[in-house]
Amino acid sequence: MDKTAPMASPPDPETRLHDAHHESLRLWLRLLTCTLTIERDVRARLRERFAMTLARFDLMAQLERNPEGLKMGELSRRLMVTSGNVTGLTDQLVDEGLVERTPIPADRRAFRVRLTGKGKRAFDVMAAEHEGWVIEMFSGLSDRERDRLHALLGRLKVTMHTSERAKART
Amino acid sequence: MDKTAPMASPPDPETRLHDAHHESLRLWLRLLTCTLTIERDVRARLRERFAMTLARFDLMAQLERNPEGLKMGELSRRLMVTSGNVTGLTDQLVDEGLVERTPIPADRRAFRVRLTGKGKRAFDVMAAEHEGWVIEMFSGLSDRERDRLHALLGRLKVTMHTSERAKART
Repeated sequence: MDKTAPMASPPDPETRLHDAHHESLRLWLRLLTCTLTIERDVRARLRERFAMTLARFDLMAQLERNPEGLKMGELSRRLMVTSGNVTGLTDQLVDEGLVERTPIPADRRAFRVRLTGKGKRAFDVMAAEHEGWVIEMFSGLSDRERDRLHALLGRLKVTMHTSERAKART
Repeated sequence: MDKTAPMASPPDPETRLHDAHHESLRLWLRLLTCTLTIERDVRARLRERFAMTLARFDLMAQLERNPEGLKMGELSRRLMVTSGNVTGLTDQLVDEGLVERTPIPADRRAFRVRLTGKGKRAFDVMAAEHEGWVIEMFSGLSDRERDRLHALLGRLKVTMHTSERAKART
């Protein structure tokens, strides 16, 4: 594991809680703590095992799911990073032969980005290990607990989207 | 709400799932989706309402929880950002009179960072609104569902820490 200072112990946003805070805030900070803990672990392992950043791994994961390729704007939206960042990440991956840009016949100014054969093979190796790390991290929960957690987060996801649509209408 | 391209619709890491993926990976990506959705919403609202970044809000939240102040290394660890980033954030907040550096008598080279009175008042206003946003985002779940989710994430948090300690020993 990485030994630099910011990695010395897991981040824990829950440490900032006061007793009087509302239960939803407690729940949010616990959700955030779990996410940051897993993300930190995945980030360290990708770096150690494959000298790969999480941002580049996430970009390759999106392309692997879309073999026909994605436009830059779509990649930017899915990865929730700026177009400039996506361009920088893509340039690096193109230089290494892991992704390629292909023109879109209907639009001379636009292109799609997709994995090369080399990129697909490299991603498959990383993704298999990545899945093992995630399985290990959730292995302290029983099958039933994992099912319940998945269902509750599904409820949260659906009700949050509803509330966003409601906001957009007003 | 913000209308720029990356915010046009919620990020959804679950879109990259294949059918064959292990349930723990599905669970992790759903956890990540929920976290990113809430974080994106909070980030947009902090910017809109208070011209405040999430990084600066998180830094102030840590200081509010520790009125005696925190050393830079401790802040860096808790916020999971590099020392350089914490220095930059702190400099901005000092310039605005929201935080201050105080010397540590026992160590002439070190200092603590803490909220000023102005910083505490500004944070209290933001924190009260922030709590309202979070309550709203979780309002689609019943009390019972929120309790269960909180308990399951608590189980996850504890079992993940255990597994990290186990790794550190080997």
